[in-house]
Amino acid sequence: MKALLTWWEGCCVASKFLRFIDYNLRGIGQVMFMDNPLSGLLFFVAIGWGSYEAGMPQVAIGGLVAVVAATLTAQWLRVDPADLGAGLYGYNAYLVGLSFGTFLAVSPLWWVYVALGGAVSVPVTLGTANVFKTWGVAALTAPFVLTAWLFLLATYVFSAIEGSGLPMAAEIVPIDPAAANPLALGDFVAGVLKSITQVFLKASILAALLLLVGLAVNSLAAAAFALGGAIVAVITAHVLGAESDLITGGLMGFSPVLTAIALGAVFYKSGVRVAIYALVGTVFTVIVQGAMNVALTPFGIPTLTAPFVLASWIFLLPRQHFE
Amino acid sequence: MKALLTWWEGCCVASKFLRFIDYNLRGIGQVMFMDNPLSGLLFFVAIGWGSYEAGMPQVAIGGLVAVVAATLTAQWLRVDPADLGAGLYGYNAYLVGLSFGTFLAVSPLWWVYVALGGAVSVPVTLGTANVFKTWGVAALTAPFVLTAWLFLLATYVFSAIEGSGLPMAAEIVPIDPAAANPLALGDFVAGVLKSITQVFLKASILAALLLLVGLAVNSLAAAAFALGGAIVAVITAHVLGAESDLITGGLMGFSPVLTAIALGAVFYKSGVRVAIYALVGTVFTVIVQGAMNVALTPFGIPTLTAPFVLASWIFLLPRQHFE
Amino acid sequence: MKALLTWWEGCCVASKFLRFIDYNLRGIGQVMFMDNPLSGLLFFVAIGWGSYEAGMPQVAIGGLVAVVAATLTAQWLRVDPADLGAGLYGYNAYLVGLSFGTFLAVSPLWWVYVALGGAVSVPVTLGTANVFKTWGVAALTAPFVLTAWLFLLATYVFSAIEGSGLPMAAEIVPIDPAAANPLALGDFVAGVLKSITQVFLKASILAALLLLVGLAVNSLAAAAFALGGAIVAVITAHVLGAESDLITGGLMGFSPVLTAIALGAVFYKSGVRVAIYALVGTVFTVIVQGAMNVALTPFGIPTLTAPFVLASWIFLLPRQHFE
Repeated sequence: MKALLTWWEGCCVASKFLRFIDYNLRGIGQVMFMDNPLSGLLFFVAIGWGSYEAGMPQVAIGGLVAVVAATLTAQWLRVDPADLGAGLYGYNAYLVGLSFGTFLAVSPLWWVYVALGGAVSVPVTLGTANVFKTWGVAALTAPFVLTAWLFLLATYVFSAIEGSGLPMAAEIVPIDPAAANPLALGDFVAGVLKSITQVFLKASILAALLLLVGLAVNSLAAAAFALGGAIVAVITAHVLGAESDLITGGLMGFSPVLTAIALGAVFYKSGVRVAIYALVGTVFTVIVQGAMNVALTPFGIPTLTAPFVLASWIFLLPRQHFE
Repeated sequence: MKALLTWWEGCCVASKFLRFIDYNLRGIGQVMFMDNPLSGLLFFVAIGWGSYEAGMPQVAIGGLVAVVAATLTAQWLRVDPADLGAGLYGYNAYLVGLSFGTFLAVSPLWWVYVALGGAVSVPVTLGTANVFKTWGVAALTAPFVLTAWLFLLATYVFSAIEGSGLPMAAEIVPIDPAAANPLALGDFVAGVLKSITQVFLKASILAALLLLVGLAVNSLAAAAFALGGAIVAVITAHVLGAESDLITGGLMGFSPVLTAIALGAVFYKSGVRVAIYALVGTVFTVIVQGAMNVALTPFGIPTLTAPFVLASWIFLLPRQHFE
Repeated sequence: MKALLTWWEGCCVASKFLRFIDYNLRGIGQVMFMDNPLSGLLFFVAIGWGSYEAGMPQVAIGGLVAVVAATLTAQWLRVDPADLGAGLYGYNAYLVGLSFGTFLAVSPLWWVYVALGGAVSVPVTLGTANVFKTWGVAALTAPFVLTAWLFLLATYVFSAIEGSGLPMAAEIVPIDPAAANPLALGDFVAGVLKSITQVFLKASILAALLLLVGLAVNSLAAAAFALGGAIVAVITAHVLGAESDLITGGLMGFSPVLTAIALGAVFYKSGVRVAIYALVGTVFTVIVQGAMNVALTPFGIPTLTAPFVLASWIFLLPRQHFE
């Protein structure tokens, strides 16, 4: 693995074009905190497969267009080269593009919207990072959430951009508690694996395996916490009585997966106490996911990864306590 | 009074168990800014009585479970001992527990929810305090509001936790102005006293008197500003034409009471200019209470003490002007 | 021009009353970033004309009462004299007063509401400025937006203050795309000019010309970016398919106008790169305006200049990149 990465780094030193590709791959890898072009490539393939499988190639293509737009914007804005080289200006844009592919109908103007969304995510990222470095905390995917929410909300008043996949603003509907029972083994495994792919807005079991490999090549701990976080999330959501469709579709688990990786394997040094802390944070993220599903109902937009951002900030802001 | 507290402090030095009780009592006292175990005990008795009187013992019990869970969590997280000893990790949890007792139906899972809410309030408190110390301002009850909002919102999608007392999300309903006339002396006094107990989510006249005693044993100024704030709030709300049921039930006045204490007796040095400033802040808090009643209608959750937090932050952030 | 201002400065040195007028005129000028009493006077005349033309003198009068209340409050609070002398405690209050004149019915209590709103805008301004100076960014009109939102929201539950002009909270209504076609020259020019006056909540072509003169006497660049921003906003909103009534009434363009001035002529040093950045920021502000129109629908309050504040903060927070 190490030899492969050294060879690739050599190629990038020799070619500006390959370096540009490297920026974008690392940007995709950073969706799950992986500053590693191989992880990024595996994530890219996983999402490509997931999009193709779902008959929605515009998702993967939107992600690609947005991340390239963001990298070009970041270069134009002369951002810090170390941050650019670590992929920190790509992951939010990639997610913006995936979300526009998922929730908006393709049209000529859609391409402009995707490119503009990717480009705008760069100042949003710079601004968010500036604000949150005051407290020693990363921006996480907040720039993605903010950018995508604004662009998606606006489609309700702009007739030239159609929100084909958006939930219309609606009254909160009561839940059918009888429907909640994803304890069959097949449903359980599907819920766990789809919780991992829903980080990238797709539900696909094969893609989940590719994502886990992409994590493992860079960090076994990250892969373990991703899987563990998904299991904890599915169980917690079921115990609390969430709708089974949401659970088995991975829609209660993708934010907890990110929280588990962030708290357990990225921002704190691993250990028993940190693992317990990450466990509580993961359970809490399921509750925040539920809360945000309710809170966003009047607005007709999805939560995206906002529950992860809010819960992880809450558990990261007191970070001195594990150092 | 002083001798009593000295004797108690001696007991706490001798016994870890009594020290633990001391932490929790001070935590309860800090709901109204009183770092004093006797104030905390009187508040605890007041709320116990108010819960019993209303036939809802789960309110007082929820508060107790949550504050103990928070104190244990704070010790596990090795927080600053001085802050722990001042009760700063207890008051938000106590309010979380009271709110779960008030708005959620008791069930086996309710106990887990209360304990988890109390525990999570600790990182929320640490995080909020870290952020707001940047501007030299206290977290106030923001950690309570944030934690409780998330847990309460989530109950709409979790069938295993029932929000028995929650207002369902609904259209804003027009007001019957004719109903607004709480000028009869009995109603006026009830509105004033219940404004004080509603700080702890209860409407009880006897409890209000106990709370005033609890304030007075530690700070006569705090007791005076609490009472004065309640009077100002009831008059302001009536002049503005708020619903009489809300006013006489104390629901327009509990946030202004906290603002009056905070601005008049806790965070600024008392004086004529500060009293005028606190008066304007108290009147403003009534308007913020009205605004938040409207803003939260689509979400089906109560404002809790958010109007106090927002209004007091606004009047505390420029604090240099009275020093 | 310079001689006129020097003469006026001399008058102000000689007379406390004229100095007080100077504070208020600069406060009005700062609505469009102009620290210049002549600009303020021209803006004041423009809005006076616009109010008279619309048969709503209470708009201009409300603005005047609120800005005077704010200046008196700022003096009572002993704010920094340099900031007071630059009009920084007036512009938010002036906008608060204009908004109360626009959205609320006049009554005896309305005058108290206007004066209180103007007075409260001062601590809100101090607090917001304290927070945002952490990141080297101005408060912009955030204090106006926050203050006005709270006071306007509250009118839904206070029967003594009537929100005559407020949009009732409502379901999001589908758009008639066929209605969107403001390409006729007359409509286009009206949309551009009204985008400039809507900064002050009025739609008036003559007032727009007076505002442009008021900008030009202090900064030709500001006048140029205001006009350019309005043109960009009208075109962008039309291309995206916004409702033609909103576009030609200036309601999609007033926030982008402020963004264009802020990014192009005030906070960054002018240049080609900054002009491109301001262009993207202006286009983005149109999208944020659309998003906020949707997001505020459940609450029944107007966006005011919040889209400008949010978009400009996003484009100002990474400010190091043009220095």
